Amino acid sequence: MHTLRRYLPILDWGRTYNRSALSNDLVAAVIVTIMLIPQSLAYALLAGLPPEAGIYASIAPIVLYAIFGTSRALAVGPVAVVSLLTASAIGQVAEQGTAGYAVAALTLAFLSGGFLMLLGVLRLGFLANFLSHPVIAGFITASGILIATSQLKHILGVSAHGHTLPEMLTSLFAHLGDTNWITVLIGVSAAGFLFWVRGNLKPLLKRLGTGPVLTDFLAKGGPVVAVVATTVAVWGFGLAEQGVKIVGDVPQSLPPLTLPGLSSDLVGALMVPAILISIIGFVESVSVAQTLAAKKRQRIDPDQELIGLGAANLGAAFSGGFPVTGGFSRSVVNYDAGAETPAAGIYTAIGLAIAAVALTPLVYFLPNATLAATIIVAVLTLVDFSILKKTWDYSRADFSAVAATILLTLGLGVEVGVAAGVAISVLLHLYKTSRPHVAEVGLVPGTQHFRNIHRHEVETCPSVVTLRVDESLYFVNARFLEDLVQSHVTEGCAIKHVVLMFSAVNEVDYSALESLEAINARLRDMGVGLHLSEVKGPVMDRLKRSHLIQDLNGEVFLSQFEAWQKVGHPKLHHVAE
Amino acid sequence: MHTLRRYLPILDWGRTYNRSALSNDLVAAVIVTIMLIPQSLAYALLAGLPPEAGIYASIAPIVLYAIFGTSRALAVGPVAVVSLLTASAIGQVAEQGTAGYAVAALTLAFLSGGFLMLLGVLRLGFLANFLSHPVIAGFITASGILIATSQLKHILGVSAHGHTLPEMLTSLFAHLGDTNWITVLIGVSAAGFLFWVRGNLKPLLKRLGTGPVLTDFLAKGGPVVAVVATTVAVWGFGLAEQGVKIVGDVPQSLPPLTLPGLSSDLVGALMVPAILISIIGFVESVSVAQTLAAKKRQRIDPDQELIGLGAANLGAAFSGGFPVTGGFSRSVVNYDAGAETPAAGIYTAIGLAIAAVALTPLVYFLPNATLAATIIVAVLTLVDFSILKKTWDYSRADFSAVAATILLTLGLGVEVGVAAGVAISVLLHLYKTSRPHVAEVGLVPGTQHFRNIHRHEVETCPSVVTLRVDESLYFVNARFLEDLVQSHVTEGCAIKHVVLMFSAVNEVDYSALESLEAINARLRDMGVGLHLSEVKGPVMDRLKRSHLIQDLNGEVFLSQFEAWQKVGHPKLHHVAE
Repeated sequence: MHTLRRYLPILDWGRTYNRSALSNDLVAAVIVTIMLIPQSLAYALLAGLPPEAGIYASIAPIVLYAIFGTSRALAVGPVAVVSLLTASAIGQVAEQGTAGYAVAALTLAFLSGGFLMLLGVLRLGFLANFLSHPVIAGFITASGILIATSQLKHILGVSAHGHTLPEMLTSLFAHLGDTNWITVLIGVSAAGFLFWVRGNLKPLLKRLGTGPVLTDFLAKGGPVVAVVATTVAVWGFGLAEQGVKIVGDVPQSLPPLTLPGLSSDLVGALMVPAILISIIGFVESVSVAQTLAAKKRQRIDPDQELIGLGAANLGAAFSGGFPVTGGFSRSVVNYDAGAETPAAGIYTAIGLAIAAVALTPLVYFLPNATLAATIIVAVLTLVDFSILKKTWDYSRADFSAVAATILLTLGLGVEVGVAAGVAISVLLHLYKTSRPHVAEVGLVPGTQHFRNIHRHEVETCPSVVTLRVDESLYFVNARFLEDLVQSHVTEGCAIKHVVLMFSAVNEVDYSALESLEAINARLRDMGVGLHLSEVKGPVMDRLKRSHLIQDLNGEVFLSQFEAWQKVGHPKLHHVAE
Repeated sequence: MHTLRRYLPILDWGRTYNRSALSNDLVAAVIVTIMLIPQSLAYALLAGLPPEAGIYASIAPIVLYAIFGTSRALAVGPVAVVSLLTASAIGQVAEQGTAGYAVAALTLAFLSGGFLMLLGVLRLGFLANFLSHPVIAGFITASGILIATSQLKHILGVSAHGHTLPEMLTSLFAHLGDTNWITVLIGVSAAGFLFWVRGNLKPLLKRLGTGPVLTDFLAKGGPVVAVVATTVAVWGFGLAEQGVKIVGDVPQSLPPLTLPGLSSDLVGALMVPAILISIIGFVESVSVAQTLAAKKRQRIDPDQELIGLGAANLGAAFSGGFPVTGGFSRSVVNYDAGAETPAAGIYTAIGLAIAAVALTPLVYFLPNATLAATIIVAVLTLVDFSILKKTWDYSRADFSAVAATILLTLGLGVEVGVAAGVAISVLLHLYKTSRPHVAEVGLVPGTQHFRNIHRHEVETCPSVVTLRVDESLYFVNARFLEDLVQSHVTEGCAIKHVVLMFSAVNEVDYSALESLEAINARLRDMGVGLHLSEVKGPVMDRLKRSHLIQDLNGEVFLSQFEAWQKVGHPKLHHVAE
């Protein structure tokens, strides 16, 4: 039962579900549903899919996440960055608007869902940690710029393409002559209105004395107002005949049962993008879920989250959707609106299903420019170059990783950008640990403490070198240690003992073990003793499995002071007494 | 002058060169020259090149290394593993025996030399450290097997091909019917004789009372005896007409001036193999040089070694050679024979130049089978599966890296094998550091020391959790720390203070900083204090550049005992006093 509840968190919160939770969840569901209708249409547009795909992608996935997910407030569905990645991935295997394109989206959701499930079952959630925070921040910022740029064509009413910033801009400039000025008017007005709602409406309502809940509701309703107003305008003035592109026919139906294409060509082409989408979606979703859970001292289980998101994506694959994940804005709205349990998600799904059946004819005249405006306003909040300054101030290594990620994402596309970001982070880490900080230490007079001889007034002994190694020893820095000891010993011929102080050494891998053995052998040839001090328990356990300790041309001391008393003492008498 | 001497070590040892060094170097040069003649021919055969290429590759490179290298004893020239990598790389761009094949070998040496020079000038020698010892050991063992297998065709007198073990074996079996039994007789006798020389001659000579220098000389002379005996046999019995493949015409000439092909196709195809050859050659060479230097308390400078090896390879590219590096066996012979300075190398080069002009007609009847036998006997000493057992005993992670490297090198070829080995080592390292050892610690009664509460009898305080983090904090484990703190705090509602003890934290990167900020914010929301203790100097310097310290919902304590006195004390009174 305990295991079952771990894999089906619904059994956990479902047991204690009560009337108060029900009413809170219902209120939250209404608010989220209203917000999700235009958002779902917009992200379908961004992914290059028909509008209904956006709504379908918000129904089954929400329900499945409610059953398998561990976050109480996370709202799952299409999100901006994942939609962009989807467009980029399936644009490479099919032409937008064709049946093959929609099938490729299902395949991508299927592969992504399967991969997430696999990671979850194997409990490999930690893999997501290979994406460093600065790389994610740089990637999200660059993606926001790419997304906003990709929507400019809808605002201008022209057709353009491209998956990198230079491609998009070149294509836009080439088609600038086709600009439809009525579309521009609609798009710019909608965007202007939404920016105003976002920036100025709340303070205004507060000054007018509106209650906080109503204020919030009105502020979130901005996109709905823009949608309604521009739809009515297009319908009333017959603007569709003037060349304004509209959403058009959307089938009135519940999500259909769909089958993802599984030909080996398609699977082969989409496998890498699916892995990338899974990991980025997972990272985004877990960050949101963790932030919200922490506010109520709740916990989420990252491995179970993989299963929840995996199930959601599989759901999307079989119900006419496309890849989904936990979205930031919808989850925050859900949380702020008072959602107490994942049941709120189930009610939202019911609301969206009703909308899919009953309300789709109402968006016939909705102009694409309005949807593009809602996307642009939403994603520009993702763009935050302050990460460049923050990392510059803190560490040049992190700065390089962010800058490279941003430039490569903009210049070569989302996939190259994020892959390069990960590679650069890993290489920088290896580089940093390859030349660890090693301090030559001496005794602080009158104490048992040892400090850097270059920073403190300490006692030393000319026949003893004590080196404190401030890093785990592994293959990347093993040779460095060999060189370092060698240079210390060849410098001073009077040296009779080398003591390596291992207080900050958390691991010694086999390469480092061989280096220590080599150091030991060389020092023995020179008639110099090699001693270790303050070796940690787990490291010592490991070293005892090798021959190093028994072959050591010296001793292992529990504390550096003991080592000093034994090998440094004779001289200490002359220096200190 | 000092800088010049750093880049031209010859200026250093040249100043003090004297008559005693001269005579020692001359003796060593004679011995090494005799050993190198068959070896050079054999490695040319292994690389698929005409025999003279092996001799040319030993002349200019030796001289250039003597000028630029820092090792006193290293002997540079063709070596087994690099010759195999050469055959594998240029076999992909040209047909063996064509002019294009020889030109590709020059290009490979040129690219490799240029890359080594570049690394040296940029002082990037540390990059070689990304190859862990177990991966190198596994790779060398697998290469030894591949090399020995690749020579079986010469022993059987058949033509076969392939760059992986399955390919080679399949091809050999397919051609087994063409076996030339006279060739087999020559090859097997030569191999048997060489194994006997290696294993039994030395003890025998010792029992016979031969002096140690003569013993050594005779033992090293084994290949020369095999070469002379089989050459005479082929000539005397006219075995070449019986289908025994022989070396044939070798031009009588000094190394020619050659130009590597630099078409973009060729450079593009050989760039990655050249980088691989450079790094593997460098690692092998530096290990040998370091081992020999340590015996005389001399030092080598790895970055200057890159320049020395780079110059050697560029020399090979312009004098009809192929990629070279510092070889183990030739360097040890050179050292044992008493070489004192790199001048010994220059005399060896003169000896080989004389051989190239005067002795090449003598090897006309030398059978390829003899050369193959010398290769097989030499490389089988590289094969050492004990690394599997050693790493298995010491650490499963290292074992996995070795096993994967061996299997992939044998199964998919040298390039895939070594690349996979590096990737696996890095991933395993990241995995290990992604779940660092974190101990909850308490005060050892009557001391100021803190130890793991699960290993020792210690005092704790129910409102304080003290966690000692035994790893640097960076992006791979940043989220782990967040989860860990979260789980400790959600477990016990009585907790009022979290103390993170940073004595083993050697770095906090930007991702970890953000995690600490998130932990701080969450704990503040819960009304729990966050404190740091024993933060190292460099880490603290870095943290002070961020807002963490000023926003900290708690204090930074120099020692854990201070932290305990401050936040744990009120309870300590009740427990301890």
